Amino acid sequence: MSTVTILGAGAMGSALATPMLQAGHDVRLWGTFLDDHLIDSIKAGSPHPRTNVKVPDGVASFYHGELEQALAGVEVAIIAVSSVGVADIARLAAPYLQDVQGILITSKGFFPDEQGTIQLLPQTVEAQLRAGGTPFKPVVAIGGPCKANEVAYGQPTATIFGVEGGASAWASLAKTKTYRVASTSDRDGLEICAAMKNVFAIALGVADGLSEVGEQPYHNLKSAIFAQALAELRMLLSAAGTDPWTALGLPGAGDLEVTGISGRNKVYGARLGKGEKATTALAEMVALEQTVEGVDAVRLAVVFIEQRFSELLAQMPLLSAIYAVVHGGESIDRIVEAALPR
Amino acid sequence: MSTVTILGAGAMGSALATPMLQAGHDVRLWGTFLDDHLIDSIKAGSPHPRTNVKVPDGVASFYHGELEQALAGVEVAIIAVSSVGVADIARLAAPYLQDVQGILITSKGFFPDEQGTIQLLPQTVEAQLRAGGTPFKPVVAIGGPCKANEVAYGQPTATIFGVEGGASAWASLAKTKTYRVASTSDRDGLEICAAMKNVFAIALGVADGLSEVGEQPYHNLKSAIFAQALAELRMLLSAAGTDPWTALGLPGAGDLEVTGISGRNKVYGARLGKGEKATTALAEMVALEQTVEGVDAVRLAVVFIEQRFSELLAQMPLLSAIYAVVHGGESIDRIVEAALPR
Repeated sequence: MSTVTILGAGAMGSALATPMLQAGHDVRLWGTFLDDHLIDSIKAGSPHPRTNVKVPDGVASFYHGELEQALAGVEVAIIAVSSVGVADIARLAAPYLQDVQGILITSKGFFPDEQGTIQLLPQTVEAQLRAGGTPFKPVVAIGGPCKANEVAYGQPTATIFGVEGGASAWASLAKTKTYRVASTSDRDGLEICAAMKNVFAIALGVADGLSEVGEQPYHNLKSAIFAQALAELRMLLSAAGTDPWTALGLPGAGDLEVTGISGRNKVYGARLGKGEKATTALAEMVALEQTVEGVDAVRLAVVFIEQRFSELLAQMPLLSAIYAVVHGGESIDRIVEAALPR
Repeated sequence: MSTVTILGAGAMGSALATPMLQAGHDVRLWGTFLDDHLIDSIKAGSPHPRTNVKVPDGVASFYHGELEQALAGVEVAIIAVSSVGVADIARLAAPYLQDVQGILITSKGFFPDEQGTIQLLPQTVEAQLRAGGTPFKPVVAIGGPCKANEVAYGQPTATIFGVEGGASAWASLAKTKTYRVASTSDRDGLEICAAMKNVFAIALGVADGLSEVGEQPYHNLKSAIFAQALAELRMLLSAAGTDPWTALGLPGAGDLEVTGISGRNKVYGARLGKGEKATTALAEMVALEQTVEGVDAVRLAVVFIEQRFSELLAQMPLLSAIYAVVHGGESIDRIVEAALPR
């Protein structure tokens, strides 16, 4: 049993409180400056506004101003904020993380460092800890197909933890009867998959949108997009020196599957498939307070690849097509074409 | 331009007539003894009863009794019957296939030879041709995510042809603007994927059935099943000496995706997920004239593996669980458990 503090009280952070409590830990849930109303609702015993599931009573909740108390004597910290908030939260928390055994991170995406080089989020966390004078801590990435509402509700879930050298001890920390944890030493491969799935989910959504308005479904197309996404993921993992087989596992195919079934990136893509312009679709979702992480992620993914493996982009027609549609106003025909054999 | 005869006028056979005609060939469609009413309907210009799409007028159709005429002077034959019919059709057709350039096959599954050894369908065709004294012909397997109704309608489709030495010339024969064909030399890997996807689709359907009747969806579970299926497929491909990466491509992940979205194997699985007993679910579907190929395929798959790589079965808990549920009357909990990390 450990003292575990979850940083970020949104859907995923609050959801993780359930398996962590069931696994026998002393669980604290801290809200960012965006989350005070969520903490209000949790303290009131209401269902969480994002997952519609009540956070268990045994979880101690903390407002944004109570970070020090939330992290006092903590053994394991879990960062569960949106990708844009990871650097800030890591910097804020660094002074209180001197004695933790490790840091888990559920956030997914890319983030530019101060030189403008795009980094994976575990590297972002490590850089902030170094800058804050915190001694080295293992940063364990969490991937695999995990919709937060299902985790909160206790639906059967297969997740995967990744850290250099192997994550099986970390996996043991979290597993319950329904929240099962595999482990891998390919943390960065896992993280690349996690970041890219929000991008490719937009294309999967396009096929769903076409199906909704078409006379016949576009299931063949959705499946062609799925296979092309995995093929491009495999190439990216190889280029990055990570394990290309990670594309076939829970972090790759598994997470892409769940992201293509539901979620905001898919819904945004479906709007494009139904004929909305990219700018209109995004504006409408922003108005509904629905963040579409894939929109930023596709731009960052392209820069990440240009900065590191620039020759690779020409071999990733689907990624390039999603970028052209989302940020260049091109027709979704470009995505359809990119998914089909030439 | 070639003369192409499609053997089997069911959903897939009739659907393939469209791209073959569009690719510029002289296309003939022959019905088996089960298909005479389908040929009636095609000759009458009605929509095909299975795909609900009209077969193009340029396609010549032939009744069961007209096999010799259907195959006279044919350059390419395509076998598109259900897996149980492949050996019979190959034997019937063999005398008229002396001069064909090659034989394509869309049928998917396993088939026992006369010694009771389970074979892949291209091997079944080759054995029948040998027995009929037909000189060696390349047998090209067709895989990838291709729902017949979408192919018939002209929806964008990515398929893949496989034959030893590479199938790119065969792929060129068939491709159109919307029916696109990749190629591989890993024919047997493709064929194993094609046969196994009907099996794993049952498990994907179970998750859908649970979602239908549950208070919360089981999307995490469906995705865990998806990843576990691919992991087991990878092992099987390796053991069989085929290319394990085929599991990640159109034949593996691509075809599994489309089979998990719709189709009879998934629908059968969903019945199990909703609480029907395996025997009841099958009886009801048979009564609706809906063949569930995965039910036989899971039994044949287990024997195929026992006969060739018996130590592998212990490493394929999902396959074993599907077998136990479908043929042993065990609870679907076994499938759930098999899909989760231990």
